[in-house]
Amino acid sequence: MTDLSRLTATETLSRVQSGRTDPREVAEALLEAVAARENVLRAFTWHDPEAVRAQAARAKGPLAGIHLGVKDVLDTADMPSQYGSPIWAGHRPRTDSAAVALARRAGMVVAGKTVTTEFATRFPGPTTNPHDPRHTPGGSSSGSAAGVAAGFFPLAIATQTGGSVIRPAAFCGVHGFKPSFGAIHRGGMKVMSESLDTIGLMARSLDDIALGMQALTGRDHGRPSERPGRAPRIGVTMGPGESLCGEETRALLGRVEEAARCAGATVEAFAMPAECAEANALHPFVMNMESHDALAWEMDHARSLLSPVLREKMEDAMAADPAKLVAGRAAFVAARRAMAAAMEGFDALLTASAPGEAPEGIGWTGDPGCNSLWTALHLPCVTVPAGEGPKGLPLGVQVVAAEDGEALRWAAWVEAAL
Amino acid sequence: MTDLSRLTATETLSRVQSGRTDPREVAEALLEAVAARENVLRAFTWHDPEAVRAQAARAKGPLAGIHLGVKDVLDTADMPSQYGSPIWAGHRPRTDSAAVALARRAGMVVAGKTVTTEFATRFPGPTTNPHDPRHTPGGSSSGSAAGVAAGFFPLAIATQTGGSVIRPAAFCGVHGFKPSFGAIHRGGMKVMSESLDTIGLMARSLDDIALGMQALTGRDHGRPSERPGRAPRIGVTMGPGESLCGEETRALLGRVEEAARCAGATVEAFAMPAECAEANALHPFVMNMESHDALAWEMDHARSLLSPVLREKMEDAMAADPAKLVAGRAAFVAARRAMAAAMEGFDALLTASAPGEAPEGIGWTGDPGCNSLWTALHLPCVTVPAGEGPKGLPLGVQVVAAEDGEALRWAAWVEAAL
Repeated sequence: MTDLSRLTATETLSRVQSGRTDPREVAEALLEAVAARENVLRAFTWHDPEAVRAQAARAKGPLAGIHLGVKDVLDTADMPSQYGSPIWAGHRPRTDSAAVALARRAGMVVAGKTVTTEFATRFPGPTTNPHDPRHTPGGSSSGSAAGVAAGFFPLAIATQTGGSVIRPAAFCGVHGFKPSFGAIHRGGMKVMSESLDTIGLMARSLDDIALGMQALTGRDHGRPSERPGRAPRIGVTMGPGESLCGEETRALLGRVEEAARCAGATVEAFAMPAECAEANALHPFVMNMESHDALAWEMDHARSLLSPVLREKMEDAMAADPAKLVAGRAAFVAARRAMAAAMEGFDALLTASAPGEAPEGIGWTGDPGCNSLWTALHLPCVTVPAGEGPKGLPLGVQVVAAEDGEALRWAAWVEAAL
Repeated sequence: MTDLSRLTATETLSRVQSGRTDPREVAEALLEAVAARENVLRAFTWHDPEAVRAQAARAKGPLAGIHLGVKDVLDTADMPSQYGSPIWAGHRPRTDSAAVALARRAGMVVAGKTVTTEFATRFPGPTTNPHDPRHTPGGSSSGSAAGVAAGFFPLAIATQTGGSVIRPAAFCGVHGFKPSFGAIHRGGMKVMSESLDTIGLMARSLDDIALGMQALTGRDHGRPSERPGRAPRIGVTMGPGESLCGEETRALLGRVEEAARCAGATVEAFAMPAECAEANALHPFVMNMESHDALAWEMDHARSLLSPVLREKMEDAMAADPAKLVAGRAAFVAARRAMAAAMEGFDALLTASAPGEAPEGIGWTGDPGCNSLWTALHLPCVTVPAGEGPKGLPLGVQVVAAEDGEALRWAAWVEAAL
């Protein structure tokens, strides 16, 4: 008998639409998966089986009965929205965030709120890696990545300011998509860095991500897995995180490059434009300064409830020169322009999703050094699972393109080549 | 005896800091101004004299005792935040928005929530023009503009997606500043168009606006009224709203141009880059598509409580092709790039703030055609009062520059030249 919790959203949808499976059966299967593993996985910060059943029973729409994990930095009208901080404990928003409202309009079932690090910054939650609980699942979208991998839900909403979609997806062995900046509306999200925060999706297939994107943005990217009529021209770069990357990541990129070439791609080294170094260097400054403004109320009314690591960053930001923000934003604009020119003639770039496997321990979610620049560039990024590292934990490889649909299509092409 | 309600924030601050005036006296004077005119003006959607007195009594900080009107699309923890819509009637947010929290940190007194059109879009509130109640104050920041003009508060927070800061400020005869995109953090604001919504300020002097900007962004723009050591090179353009502009606006621009030349400026015609036409044409599409996502919950749970005009726009957006958004955003980026090149060699541009005087009636807040493009360009814009039109209502002139501090300084230079 089919384990419905292991099906992709696309497969489930096909069964539901043909009448072979009822959304209530899907819900029971997913609830069983949760019951079996949540005790160790800790993917949810809020999960109510009865609420899931009620939604499944009345699900209608193009994605009727497809379950969605929602990172708990996005508001939900019927569930607490606590942003990974005790300051917001028990907070019940009046409405759903834009992304959640659009998902529900498509008939999706909100499976629960998934664990985020504190305000999607550094201080971690209790989630463990689904492949080995002694390792981090990555962050800040920890619960979304772990839950997709564990079959709690086939799709999840995640967000990225540095590397919070791509890195945890890679660490958990699932597909992650950080679309172009602004593709998914942030209304009703606790936005920290206005210039960087980007809502994305995680799933167990790129076709599922395209399904989710259609619900959340209205855009039809087709089925990325349907092969385009030609092979891509691919640029390869270790990218801004090169110095962080371990041997397994270098070897991985070599393998993927070789596979792409064998499948017909034109592959050549991609030289990062010089402007990217400045943008990469200023990313943390812009992020922290903007986050400081976002947390002004929390700093003034509940400072002692912030983690020491976040409080220190915010106090540093308070003392820094905000005029430097102008330089930071200008560096981003200059790098975007230079990158657009450098990418001409390439369909996609291939680069590292993370420095290596998920680090040991759950006190640190890993380094975003392979991701922050791409976030600042506002370019769509996809990570696809690409084998295992020396400890048997998942590795992912990152595909970057100029436009959302292209990023999904060429990532699917690379995945098929592997 | 000095009428404290007519002083600028800068003047009040000087009196308070020297001990000549107590913040409680300031509060009483402003409350008297409100009591005298609010009945006709209708600037507030929420105003509680006792809350104002309590804040004034404990005010501490660099802007202690300076009153601030807050447009009711920004959250306040201690006052309802209703976004100009019955759907949000009685809504009490858990925290202050970022901008309000930062204003309070500086010691400002939140005078109340000011009237906004419905979700800062088209459907107007009850506010009347302070110079003639038979005319609109402009919108969407209607209450902020009218209240600053009437002496209810010397400073107010406003927001602009099309022309919602510059136009109402011009119609009410006050100073308005839409800073560069993202200068003031939008956390805790009901954001509609993510690509366009910009928080700004209104005041009765540009020095006051610089004071407010320092509180809300940390940036020190000095005193714009202190004349720089040289005269500017100014480009003059009727801008994208040229066809809308009446005779009085053409004559006004001629007068300002002449005054600037007499004061030593180099003034020449500025040719708008061709890329601006496309950006201007796509502004309403991007705005409506993004606003549709922002209102997804409202559309699905309370559609009948939207005004017919907004509902129709949102239903149009629902049926439109979201792929066109990519073209819209790309047109914005191309226009920004072209404009940056075209503005090289100019310190500032001089253009119309609005087509003319405030239209008659309060059912329509006027045309944003002189403003939308500049919002899409993300450039800082200032309007300064510049005389009267044929009906005796205020006119303003708009100054655009590449950077926030420059926009304020050169606008002050133009104002001094008038």
